[in-house]
Amino acid sequence: MKYSELYKNTLLNDVIPFWQKHSIDTENGGYFTCLDIKGQVYDKDKFIWLQGRQAWTFSMLYNKVDNNKNWLEIAKSGVDFIRQHGMDKDGNFYFSTTENGKPLIQPYNIFSDCFAAMAFSQYSKATEDEEIKSLAKQTYYNILKKKDAPKGHYEKQTNTRPLKGFALPMILSNLVLELEDVLDPIEVQRTIDYSVHEVMEVFLQKELGIIYEFVTPDGKLEDSFNGRLLNPGHGIEAMWFMIDIGVRNKNKDLVKKATQVILNILEYSWDEQHGGIFYFIDAKGKPMQQLEWDQKLWWVHLESLVALAKAYEHTQDEKTWEWYQKVHKYAWSHFSDPENGEWLGYLNRQGKPLSTLKGGKWKGCFHVPRAMYQCWKSLEQIERFQITKKVK
Amino acid sequence: MKYSELYKNTLLNDVIPFWQKHSIDTENGGYFTCLDIKGQVYDKDKFIWLQGRQAWTFSMLYNKVDNNKNWLEIAKSGVDFIRQHGMDKDGNFYFSTTENGKPLIQPYNIFSDCFAAMAFSQYSKATEDEEIKSLAKQTYYNILKKKDAPKGHYEKQTNTRPLKGFALPMILSNLVLELEDVLDPIEVQRTIDYSVHEVMEVFLQKELGIIYEFVTPDGKLEDSFNGRLLNPGHGIEAMWFMIDIGVRNKNKDLVKKATQVILNILEYSWDEQHGGIFYFIDAKGKPMQQLEWDQKLWWVHLESLVALAKAYEHTQDEKTWEWYQKVHKYAWSHFSDPENGEWLGYLNRQGKPLSTLKGGKWKGCFHVPRAMYQCWKSLEQIERFQITKKVK
Repeated sequence: MKYSELYKNTLLNDVIPFWQKHSIDTENGGYFTCLDIKGQVYDKDKFIWLQGRQAWTFSMLYNKVDNNKNWLEIAKSGVDFIRQHGMDKDGNFYFSTTENGKPLIQPYNIFSDCFAAMAFSQYSKATEDEEIKSLAKQTYYNILKKKDAPKGHYEKQTNTRPLKGFALPMILSNLVLELEDVLDPIEVQRTIDYSVHEVMEVFLQKELGIIYEFVTPDGKLEDSFNGRLLNPGHGIEAMWFMIDIGVRNKNKDLVKKATQVILNILEYSWDEQHGGIFYFIDAKGKPMQQLEWDQKLWWVHLESLVALAKAYEHTQDEKTWEWYQKVHKYAWSHFSDPENGEWLGYLNRQGKPLSTLKGGKWKGCFHVPRAMYQCWKSLEQIERFQITKKVK
Repeated sequence: MKYSELYKNTLLNDVIPFWQKHSIDTENGGYFTCLDIKGQVYDKDKFIWLQGRQAWTFSMLYNKVDNNKNWLEIAKSGVDFIRQHGMDKDGNFYFSTTENGKPLIQPYNIFSDCFAAMAFSQYSKATEDEEIKSLAKQTYYNILKKKDAPKGHYEKQTNTRPLKGFALPMILSNLVLELEDVLDPIEVQRTIDYSVHEVMEVFLQKELGIIYEFVTPDGKLEDSFNGRLLNPGHGIEAMWFMIDIGVRNKNKDLVKKATQVILNILEYSWDEQHGGIFYFIDAKGKPMQQLEWDQKLWWVHLESLVALAKAYEHTQDEKTWEWYQKVHKYAWSHFSDPENGEWLGYLNRQGKPLSTLKGGKWKGCFHVPRAMYQCWKSLEQIERFQITKKVK
């Protein structure tokens, strides 16, 4: 089977049916995301960012793959749940609620807001619902308003030695393209410029050519636990956001630079002993506080596949294709579970399952289907020019 | 070598010299706790609860083992650092500061306060310093004042489905004995009664005979991530606090009940496949959100050794002695590091080091020396009656 077909088939005949069959809360709306290896619901709490992510996924599939009414209905169920139960009176999004929407964890996490905005935007594209569209816009501006102090009064860090995190500028670089139809073009360009600058000039460390997870407010490295932290999956994911922006803006240099960073991070974070990409690394090789540092996580590997596929599609750099095949081989032989559907999420360093959950507090219907879709589309392009090459 | 001598020698000739040699900050006062396998400082941030714990350890050794001036000086250095830099204006304790005492992380964690109070109390016992004694008392009452909302405005849980945690009543049951010389006897009795009730009547689940980490405010079990969480090390540690109280109050029934709970928890949490005690368990066997659930941690095994030694000392129940030897064998062959000093902290499920740190953000000069001391003393008693038995 061609790679593109493998990704397409897995998306349409394995992953999406898994979530359709097991995650829909027909009583309260929204989705159950705590699903065991077979898809059985083991907990009913609703994590708002996973609600947003799943509503986005089904809206995106409706918009890009097939105008399937059933998919749109599923998306609607999540969008309605988030609108009705996910927001506080100031337009901030709770981290979690009970199955019927009573707030459990306060809005301390701005990524709940980010994925709500993405869901609203994709859904309004599908339905041309002006109210949802304006909710997307409103949520986006609320995120920008909070961006320098995203945790509000839940922030425990003092101002003695502040650090800024990579996650928000990284998400913004993707969010702004997602919201392109909702926002004013000037605003889109402003946020693209801001996030590309932050990602490629501030968090990208020039000498090593890799991304740091935290830097000082003026962009310097700091020799502290957080200052030394590398999150390879984050860095690589951000690079495919950069490639998307590079392609949009016809900025070949950005695509090339991002491709090199992907390769740098992979060289740096591949586990030569057991295979797979480490979850966290200390840049100076010092002992880490993250006890899960050596684990192999599904999203890290899927984001790497998307990044490598896009990099190869747009640069035809053979090294990216070699890496693609290496990561593909590891990921499909360790995470995929065709017998039960969806992918496993968490492996130990040796590649054995640490948990057999298919969904939980942090894993939902998002990374697997998004990566399957993105790889499918990139691989179609790749297979086209690979054939051309062979013919030549 | 007799067991008691092994523990005594390791305390006095390995563990304490390790911290004396590597952790003292002669410039700013207080202690470096981020030490690598050989004791080299890899980070200089100061975590207030580890400052409190080390000041307590050296004060306790001075009070109970030897009136060594050097130990008292080391204790003073930590006590002074905490007083000068660890407290905010309301008497709450920061989570961490820079090496020279500038606040880094706000006082969101009440356990910083608990270990400061313990340090103040032990140190004032050594020096008869009335000011420190009253600081111990003041800190204790501040803890009680905050006990129903320990995180203050950093609490992210709503009131929809509140849970109360086991950690605080558990710590209180030990803290109150530590502060016995500082507090009014009526207050001591009140807190003993409160904490014994919470631990043995509320958090102890009757049917299984094990401790749950969270229950509802009216003491019921809840079927949620936190409601299903078991923390075997916590449960076992609390049981030796109960035995201490039982011995103090000549309450044989409490000692016997606590002994049974230790055995129950060990049966429940021992890893039959690779040996060692799991870090976390889901009571219903559902997938867990704690990615570190299967790891083997130094303190869990040391607290188990203390608990089993005390249980055997006071009940002479042979089953506790069998378990003692099993845990002893695992712990000494996996965590101890006589070549470099101190114990390793974090092993993977298979028992291989996940990190080679000797100290960090959560591991300092506390569990190893405290357990060495407690086991040494209990084992001396045990060896006495074991000889008597043999002679008979």
